[in-house]
Amino acid sequence: MQNNAKIGIIGGDMRQLSLSRRLSENGFEVAVWGLARGDIGGAVRCTDWRSSVEKSSAVILPLGAFKDGKYVINSSLGGEGVPLAELLYIMPKDAILLCPSPDGVVKRSTANHNIAVLDYFNSEELQIKNAIPTAEGAIEIAMRELPITINGSRLLVCGYGRIGKILSTLLEKLGAKVYVCARSESDLAYIEAAGNIPVSYTDNTFMCTAKMVDAVFNTVPARIIDKTVIENMSRCKLMVDLASGDGGIDFSAAEKSGIKCIHALALPGKVAPVTAGEILADSIYTMLLKKGVLPNQ
Amino acid sequence: MQNNAKIGIIGGDMRQLSLSRRLSENGFEVAVWGLARGDIGGAVRCTDWRSSVEKSSAVILPLGAFKDGKYVINSSLGGEGVPLAELLYIMPKDAILLCPSPDGVVKRSTANHNIAVLDYFNSEELQIKNAIPTAEGAIEIAMRELPITINGSRLLVCGYGRIGKILSTLLEKLGAKVYVCARSESDLAYIEAAGNIPVSYTDNTFMCTAKMVDAVFNTVPARIIDKTVIENMSRCKLMVDLASGDGGIDFSAAEKSGIKCIHALALPGKVAPVTAGEILADSIYTMLLKKGVLPNQ
Amino acid sequence: MQNNAKIGIIGGDMRQLSLSRRLSENGFEVAVWGLARGDIGGAVRCTDWRSSVEKSSAVILPLGAFKDGKYVINSSLGGEGVPLAELLYIMPKDAILLCPSPDGVVKRSTANHNIAVLDYFNSEELQIKNAIPTAEGAIEIAMRELPITINGSRLLVCGYGRIGKILSTLLEKLGAKVYVCARSESDLAYIEAAGNIPVSYTDNTFMCTAKMVDAVFNTVPARIIDKTVIENMSRCKLMVDLASGDGGIDFSAAEKSGIKCIHALALPGKVAPVTAGEILADSIYTMLLKKGVLPNQ
Amino acid sequence: MQNNAKIGIIGGDMRQLSLSRRLSENGFEVAVWGLARGDIGGAVRCTDWRSSVEKSSAVILPLGAFKDGKYVINSSLGGEGVPLAELLYIMPKDAILLCPSPDGVVKRSTANHNIAVLDYFNSEELQIKNAIPTAEGAIEIAMRELPITINGSRLLVCGYGRIGKILSTLLEKLGAKVYVCARSESDLAYIEAAGNIPVSYTDNTFMCTAKMVDAVFNTVPARIIDKTVIENMSRCKLMVDLASGDGGIDFSAAEKSGIKCIHALALPGKVAPVTAGEILADSIYTMLLKKGVLPNQ
Repeated sequence: MQNNAKIGIIGGDMRQLSLSRRLSENGFEVAVWGLARGDIGGAVRCTDWRSSVEKSSAVILPLGAFKDGKYVINSSLGGEGVPLAELLYIMPKDAILLCPSPDGVVKRSTANHNIAVLDYFNSEELQIKNAIPTAEGAIEIAMRELPITINGSRLLVCGYGRIGKILSTLLEKLGAKVYVCARSESDLAYIEAAGNIPVSYTDNTFMCTAKMVDAVFNTVPARIIDKTVIENMSRCKLMVDLASGDGGIDFSAAEKSGIKCIHALALPGKVAPVTAGEILADSIYTMLLKKGVLPNQ
Repeated sequence: MQNNAKIGIIGGDMRQLSLSRRLSENGFEVAVWGLARGDIGGAVRCTDWRSSVEKSSAVILPLGAFKDGKYVINSSLGGEGVPLAELLYIMPKDAILLCPSPDGVVKRSTANHNIAVLDYFNSEELQIKNAIPTAEGAIEIAMRELPITINGSRLLVCGYGRIGKILSTLLEKLGAKVYVCARSESDLAYIEAAGNIPVSYTDNTFMCTAKMVDAVFNTVPARIIDKTVIENMSRCKLMVDLASGDGGIDFSAAEKSGIKCIHALALPGKVAPVTAGEILADSIYTMLLKKGVLPNQ
Repeated sequence: MQNNAKIGIIGGDMRQLSLSRRLSENGFEVAVWGLARGDIGGAVRCTDWRSSVEKSSAVILPLGAFKDGKYVINSSLGGEGVPLAELLYIMPKDAILLCPSPDGVVKRSTANHNIAVLDYFNSEELQIKNAIPTAEGAIEIAMRELPITINGSRLLVCGYGRIGKILSTLLEKLGAKVYVCARSESDLAYIEAAGNIPVSYTDNTFMCTAKMVDAVFNTVPARIIDKTVIENMSRCKLMVDLASGDGGIDFSAAEKSGIKCIHALALPGKVAPVTAGEILADSIYTMLLKKGVLPNQ
Repeated sequence: MQNNAKIGIIGGDMRQLSLSRRLSENGFEVAVWGLARGDIGGAVRCTDWRSSVEKSSAVILPLGAFKDGKYVINSSLGGEGVPLAELLYIMPKDAILLCPSPDGVVKRSTANHNIAVLDYFNSEELQIKNAIPTAEGAIEIAMRELPITINGSRLLVCGYGRIGKILSTLLEKLGAKVYVCARSESDLAYIEAAGNIPVSYTDNTFMCTAKMVDAVFNTVPARIIDKTVIENMSRCKLMVDLASGDGGIDFSAAEKSGIKCIHALALPGKVAPVTAGEILADSIYTMLLKKGVLPNQ
């Protein structure tokens, strides 16, 4: 439990600008380095990343950090990056490292330095909140790519998790006839209760549905929309794959059938970076409070 | 697996009328006894309950059977009831007894007779489907009892399970400002995503919310709305308790505060018996198919 | 233009209670007589109606005044009423009489006394606002009378004026399939744009629609639902007539066909008197300001 | 009244492709010239425009024809255009010319040739139907340009005509807080009844609203959003002007304030050409039938 807590923010885009403003508004001393140009509120910019990190109770790394397998955090302003090893060496003992989806290397390295590592990206709450910008991004793609309106179109949403729930509701509100695939009986009952049309994968209504829809949104990270399904489609003009990894659509089969496919990942940061930054800030702020990193009174 | 399957229906109201029509339409031989007056479609009425039960592959008992602790099924037309013991004695071996929420006595008795007992009421799917007539019933009560419109009112829904989800969505669509209490962070995030206002029990926003709402709908079977909460309410005119058992509201405290309370149980059968019967029929039909009790081709 | 304006309120129910509270909150001196028991805020109750009227800048008569053709305003508390002639005699010259739907007799009498008469009931704005409690009242009736849920039902709304627009939108939000009849091409286009199903009176889709709906809501004050239409209905269980005067339904033909009919008039005051009172108060308050009857500063 | 009616279509884009398909599906003989590449269904393409026009009961000109003040219809495939004078000379007497928004020159020329001219664009019905693709196009722009989600944003819609009504409803369904400006009391009452926030131009709530919104959609063809309003805006990042002619926004003042402005005209044909073509086809088909130009049986 400490007062006058300092937070270091290393690298980042418009989302970290929101985060800097929010944390400094809330009474933290915030020192940023390598953050994109823009309004950082009451935070200060450091020219040397070490000034940002020293004496900080917590250091926040940007989304996408270490994705490339290189353990270096890049500055959004260019120039040399920050090696993880050196960062951990300079961070105060007992400080907290906030890192999105830390892998085994990051977990072991921080443990070796007696530094707690927190994954701020994989909280259920943040993922639910991110489902709204994701759904809006998917709708924007459909509005841009389809030669018909959402209103009056027939659409298929595969999966009824966080994104599937919110996306299917929004599409129905815009006047589409929305078919939603799910596996469990209780999801199928909820889909019907929400005013959409439940489709089970197991029976042949899935094939009939695929045949007549104008577009497909996939949220399931498994090969749901395979060659057989695609060859059966006769009206579909667009498929938007929102599932991570390799997605759930056989892209090459779709291409052969002349159906445009878009694998749309990480939509919140792309379509609504300020909203995505606020969602991040909410989530990180709550995490800091829970760990006893409190702002000044 | 058997053909020409006969189904016996013993007792029941408008819901079992729907069920009789639906099962006979679907190709079953249906023999009913003690069922309320009304259209039973292609089913036949038996004057002796034994004719209904003999040679039946499945026997369906009405909702509310054995609730009183007496193991007798009453006819809706009056007269003597059917003792469970005698029923089981006459049912064919390997037949199925469909009974809502069977208790220990029923389970042991059927086991002794080599009869499978199926609880057709406690399926997740049926409960989700029943949440719609329950929510409409709760809305009807609020429309009848409140001197204000739902549109523009401030309402509190406690709990975000099956009923809470559907009720809060409908109230919001009717133009109310809907506050929803839930325990988990992920439910609170979903409540916000759905356009309602999330309220946590733990902080004092719960008390502030209780103070300003015009009505409360409770779905949680635990004493959520206790004396302290009620004494804090200054505008509330109505509380509708949809939770089973003793409900979640301190009714005597509410009465003292001059707040009308209605403990509204088993709404689907009361407010929309035909819809409730169709939901039941869907559920029972699926159960019979899964157990290999198939209609004639 | 006068200060310290006094307003007299003669007779009335829960709606006039709202009105009294609102006008006194807004700085008027309010003197009521013959008003139902209940909270009148800062207003004062007079035992003699003359005290309420004398020196008042405006006198407000209750809804329903003079409907019976007798020109006497009754007290809601019983006892003798106030004859119009005597009221006008006692009212200050240049005062304003606020009267719902004044007829020729009222107009001539007030003119003879140099008193301006204002119809506070027939403003477009008030009628639009009243469409919400009217629509909720109609939905309450349907929820109470139909053995099925609104969700999933097929409903016919006749007319697309103020009530038809709002009622059809709410029914659709509750999950019904809503058919709406209208005469003009532009109304039919709006109905479709709003997500409902447009039905023209002129072609035979009207008859096909009537045949298959579960309930009808009429808002057109003309015999739309005649014997031929009613005899063609095969599923309809309820008709709610919201049109004034004789309504638009052949009630005796409906009765013969076993369809329950409810002629539901003046719903706002019945189903949501507090909301109806607030709508009235808004409307009257605006009218007073426009006429230069201003509250104290 | 004639059978085997031939329709000539001169020039056009994806919308006229829909039109060609629809009219030939409905039994007309359709001869097109100068139409963009794509599926024309059972219609035939003519290499000489005269073959398309000769013996036709009706000739349909594309949207945008004669906008430039030159009375020549261009082919979408390039090459020489069709002069109006020559077209009228070749068209059969008593034939019908379907032309969008014909000006004085077109009206006089057709009258001189005894040819009826019909404006298929300015029907109330078509304009209402076009409001849906227009609203979706405006939403797509906002989703693309704003760094925040529609959900949770504060938006101002100026005008409550066809587009204002549908756009404000859709934005509200997507979770925005929508302020709508209108002039008449009855529009303001409808706006509130629809769940949006009514704003009058006359009082200073208009300025307060302008100050706090994130984006503005204008539908009024009058300088509503002038320099004073714009200088007062502190959060606004985007203005979409949907009003024809010069629009209603002072674009140069907006540019100085750093607010992005998009004057978005003719959205249906741009964002949803297939839907726009179907709307056109519906409208033209109805017009032809009313004029007695009937397809073959």
